[in-house]
Amino acid sequence: MAGDPAARGLADDCAVLEFGGEALVLTHDTMVEGVHFLSQQSAEDVAWKLVASNMSDLAAKGAEPIGVLLSYQLGPDDAAFLRGLQDALTHYGAALLGGDTVSASGPRTFGLTAIGKATHRPVPARSGARPGDRVWITGPVGRAMLGLDALRSGNGDSTFYRRGQALLKEGQELAPLVTAMMDVSDGVLLDAKRLADASGMTIDLTRKAIPIAAPEERRDEALSWGEDYELLFTTSPGAVLPIAAHPIGTVCERVENALLLDGSAPPERLGYEHN
Amino acid sequence: MAGDPAARGLADDCAVLEFGGEALVLTHDTMVEGVHFLSQQSAEDVAWKLVASNMSDLAAKGAEPIGVLLSYQLGPDDAAFLRGLQDALTHYGAALLGGDTVSASGPRTFGLTAIGKATHRPVPARSGARPGDRVWITGPVGRAMLGLDALRSGNGDSTFYRRGQALLKEGQELAPLVTAMMDVSDGVLLDAKRLADASGMTIDLTRKAIPIAAPEERRDEALSWGEDYELLFTTSPGAVLPIAAHPIGTVCERVENALLLDGSAPPERLGYEHN
Repeated sequence: MAGDPAARGLADDCAVLEFGGEALVLTHDTMVEGVHFLSQQSAEDVAWKLVASNMSDLAAKGAEPIGVLLSYQLGPDDAAFLRGLQDALTHYGAALLGGDTVSASGPRTFGLTAIGKATHRPVPARSGARPGDRVWITGPVGRAMLGLDALRSGNGDSTFYRRGQALLKEGQELAPLVTAMMDVSDGVLLDAKRLADASGMTIDLTRKAIPIAAPEERRDEALSWGEDYELLFTTSPGAVLPIAAHPIGTVCERVENALLLDGSAPPERLGYEHN
Repeated sequence: MAGDPAARGLADDCAVLEFGGEALVLTHDTMVEGVHFLSQQSAEDVAWKLVASNMSDLAAKGAEPIGVLLSYQLGPDDAAFLRGLQDALTHYGAALLGGDTVSASGPRTFGLTAIGKATHRPVPARSGARPGDRVWITGPVGRAMLGLDALRSGNGDSTFYRRGQALLKEGQELAPLVTAMMDVSDGVLLDAKRLADASGMTIDLTRKAIPIAAPEERRDEALSWGEDYELLFTTSPGAVLPIAAHPIGTVCERVENALLLDGSAPPERLGYEHN
């Protein structure tokens, strides 16, 4: 794939800006038709997903949403998109602050910049995991995967794919306690590796301890599937969690691999690589 | 053209957010290949334009830049784009805070969210013009138009098209004084009409008073051409300007037309309509 490493690095994390005793959290996600959503998906659901994925980034910072700026490529379904956008913004308590609209041919492209206010400082980052920390996840992975199956087959419940829920409240409750946190957007294995890399550590995950919503025979698939918006975080060994979560591994000093599965090197393809 | 009016309305203005005792100014511009820039333009120049157009939005608010979030569609020229981006960000004193990258086919699409800090409050808006106010512009229009001619013909100086300059310093100096302000991005006539509409007023421009950088026979064209990034603003009649500017009209109570040229209805096509 094309791509300068410096350009790819942009996707890494939220920005945090300090003003007068407050910390502002900023994030941007871009979604392209045929890449991040299916052409046949309803515009309402696409708008929801655009908001939810940004809100999930804020959740991982323990931030509360303020508002969003939308980059919108006009099409035949503008009213439906705006309805879905309004639903999602109301749900998450974020205001539509502004943005830009363009008319263009080619696959539809939508972008959203979300702005939030940190509820705890230091603001959780990916980089804070330390040797001996425990690794946790807030819930099972694979629900969005099953939802997409349902959407494609017309059989079963597609809600978790279409209307993923960003865990803002959970992120805010966890923020004071975690040593590192991020949302699982590209698969728990890949994202755990990213957290380990950002922290300069190695994370050893216990494969069977990772909760999955899918049948056991689809475990590997579920571990490499994103969009569940669960929170992946680390705490010091003795920490008492304010919410339910699943312990799935430990942090150790960096060895050759940033990620281990049951103490061994993981499969080559960990999750959804954007580029 | 397609487009829900509510969606089109997004392009209207910057957002102003009170945060931590500061007024933050946020804006987003999206640029699409073949619509907002030519496929054959250098990636450096495209990156510059993306930054400059956002900085010009900040200038109209009297804001000083803090940083940007980039939405970037990867391509064969990523290193060149990043060079141009870095040049522009250094020039304007803005940091690259983050963003997102996508791989996609179709026309390249780039977006930039810029964040600035207001240097004066109330932050200038488009809506503040009052009857009797004078209308001003900071400099001539038509330079970007001539620059594009040069670029297309390979003859002459294309700098003003390729490397437009956002007037941040001028915007900051004017902010305490203006009753309304915006940057000229889609043509002075169209943008004056927008300012008049936002203020619920009518603006009467003196056609010959509008400074143009082009030959007189291209006046009409220059008046409907954007991308010069000059600032269009209104002041109370007795105001003494801190910088040089050209008086080009007056504000009066709203009549049928939001814009008049020498007291009469203007031509139907005022400037560059995005949708």
